[in-house]
Amino acid sequence: MSIEEALASIQRGADEILVEGELRKKLERGKPLRIKAGFDPTAPDLHLGHTVLINKLRQFQQMGHEILFLIGDFTGMIGDPTGKSQTRPPLTPDEVRENAKSYTDQVFKILDPDKTEVVFNSTWMNDIGSAGMIQLAAKHTVARMLERDDFSKRYKGGQPIAIHEFLYPLIQGWDSVALKSDVELGGTDQKFNLLVGRQLQEQEGMEPQVVLTMPILEGLDGVQKMSKSLGNYIGITDPPEDMFGKLMSISDELMWRYFELLSFRPMAEIEALRARVAKGDNPRDIKFELGVELVTRFHDDASAMAARQAFIDRFQKGAMPDEMPEVELQAADGIPIANALKDAGLVSSTSEAIRMIKQNAVRLDGERLEDRGLVLARGVEVVCQVGKRKFARIRVT
Amino acid sequence: MSIEEALASIQRGADEILVEGELRKKLERGKPLRIKAGFDPTAPDLHLGHTVLINKLRQFQQMGHEILFLIGDFTGMIGDPTGKSQTRPPLTPDEVRENAKSYTDQVFKILDPDKTEVVFNSTWMNDIGSAGMIQLAAKHTVARMLERDDFSKRYKGGQPIAIHEFLYPLIQGWDSVALKSDVELGGTDQKFNLLVGRQLQEQEGMEPQVVLTMPILEGLDGVQKMSKSLGNYIGITDPPEDMFGKLMSISDELMWRYFELLSFRPMAEIEALRARVAKGDNPRDIKFELGVELVTRFHDDASAMAARQAFIDRFQKGAMPDEMPEVELQAADGIPIANALKDAGLVSSTSEAIRMIKQNAVRLDGERLEDRGLVLARGVEVVCQVGKRKFARIRVT
Repeated sequence: MSIEEALASIQRGADEILVEGELRKKLERGKPLRIKAGFDPTAPDLHLGHTVLINKLRQFQQMGHEILFLIGDFTGMIGDPTGKSQTRPPLTPDEVRENAKSYTDQVFKILDPDKTEVVFNSTWMNDIGSAGMIQLAAKHTVARMLERDDFSKRYKGGQPIAIHEFLYPLIQGWDSVALKSDVELGGTDQKFNLLVGRQLQEQEGMEPQVVLTMPILEGLDGVQKMSKSLGNYIGITDPPEDMFGKLMSISDELMWRYFELLSFRPMAEIEALRARVAKGDNPRDIKFELGVELVTRFHDDASAMAARQAFIDRFQKGAMPDEMPEVELQAADGIPIANALKDAGLVSSTSEAIRMIKQNAVRLDGERLEDRGLVLARGVEVVCQVGKRKFARIRVT
Repeated sequence: MSIEEALASIQRGADEILVEGELRKKLERGKPLRIKAGFDPTAPDLHLGHTVLINKLRQFQQMGHEILFLIGDFTGMIGDPTGKSQTRPPLTPDEVRENAKSYTDQVFKILDPDKTEVVFNSTWMNDIGSAGMIQLAAKHTVARMLERDDFSKRYKGGQPIAIHEFLYPLIQGWDSVALKSDVELGGTDQKFNLLVGRQLQEQEGMEPQVVLTMPILEGLDGVQKMSKSLGNYIGITDPPEDMFGKLMSISDELMWRYFELLSFRPMAEIEALRARVAKGDNPRDIKFELGVELVTRFHDDASAMAARQAFIDRFQKGAMPDEMPEVELQAADGIPIANALKDAGLVSSTSEAIRMIKQNAVRLDGERLEDRGLVLARGVEVVCQVGKRKFARIRVT
């Protein structure tokens, strides 16, 4: 792989690379780079949004670079130092170990365990002691810290910022010094903290790390970020059928975003898929490919094929036939649904029609009909289905 | 001593007591209070300005309270963590011990060594570790810290504040928690930090310390604060004659300030001295009393008496006689000094006059005359002295 190819591959999906020229220089040396990414030590339950970053780590790993998978257990073992949050009790070392195990169990579905170094920042952060913490705090100014977006907003808005919050970016930065990282990956919301790492490395006379930010993945709705609390997520431990079904529910546009950020296919291959759709292929078939790839990754090939088949059985078999009787009903003032079903020959009487509606056996355009009093207005065209097999396309004129 | 008397004595010279009602309550319990004052661990070379606070400690000590003489060695052993100042290298534990010894050698001229507990904050601050430092930092907000006068000015003025500077007041406050102090003394410039101690104690469920600030002592000029760099100071290791002479040089007004803040005489006695001056006693004689008290404190009784005598010999014996010949010289355009001395009969010729001036034997108003070409202008009135005994008051008309 040439430097240009490597750079192109690294740029895929990335939000920002600071500084690209430095990254090129590091790559040109031809030695494995130390690629750092930090993770919370809390019990992880990853969704696809989290894997965007891990996928990028995998890319580096496949290019032969060293992955430093950092568990930020030092601050986790402190808990919420303000004592205000009941939900952040300090973690015990046992809990940290357990969470890390759970983390890697999930992450090693993407990364190669043999080529991933899992490190804990308590290793060096406990050792620096209270004096070391003061020396670390001396390396940054209040004004520069207050330039960070969220701090700036809170300060101006009169919302309290506890002083230890200024220490966290410095700790994250010091991790880069301790690990001698060449590149640090993080979400776009981490940019400030990642840059602190650059600064501290430079102050220590080291070559500063390159900062690579990855975008936040949109959830199934295609608008808000994927998150547990918004319910628009796909957990990486979701059962195969759920995972496949949720992926099928995304829009065609979001599908390409997911291909870029979640698929391991080369971009050239993804471009070929795009071309197929442009030529008239059904996007649903392409979405199948994405679904199969991701379910295979987090489960296995057989589960993926089974999930795909189950989806087809559930949705495609229940779909409307390509051909069906077309009925035109003349009714200037509209026509009650029971009469329409009878006139279209789908039921033998309006009372049978009402019984079928009560039994939830009537669908309009695939949607179950619940309103027995519905009147089809003039101009309406709708596919009516009674039971499993009776269809008619009714047009009111 | 009644509570009222104790309070009055504590109030003497104090700038502020926060909160006085709490101090009364603490005193009313009748148990010895823990009185804290913190000092830098750098090599001390105390002047009288520093002793204002130590005198107040002595007062508490004489009322039976416990004095906690805190050496802030924890931060001293860090040095200047920004690495910018060449003058603040980190102190070694040996240097700290040595400086502390030098400190107490000086301070125990005022305090009773047997009733003074010398403590070092490294004892507890090293132990809290890097995690403890974060927990400490969590106890205060950025906004409240930026309310401190000097921080506020620097922030608004665009001057950098390193983040560790926010940790120092918290460390000072935590010392109060560790020491369970009932009262903390400090200069008026320390008020913010002393209040942090109150806050942290309250957060830890302790009764908050009372904060007592002492004013900054004016130097010999009576205007600027006493300081080495301004040269307006009296070092407590100054030789007896220097110390006595410098005290004699202060204004009569400043003398009363020094009595209040530096003398161990009860205020009633000082008021009696004031009354004597009001009735016509020479303030110089009262100043003698102050000089003798302070020289005795830092040297001994005999040295004080000797210094007093030397002062009298030097200045009073050289003073002008109460009566002397008065000479009126008529000279519309002024008269050269040599002619004036001859005309007044102090020398037999102008050449003798010039010889005496060359020999530094001529004084005008007590000041040695160096300018042989001086012309006394019309309207001048001056006491001329030749040698030790010849005086004349010359008036040029």
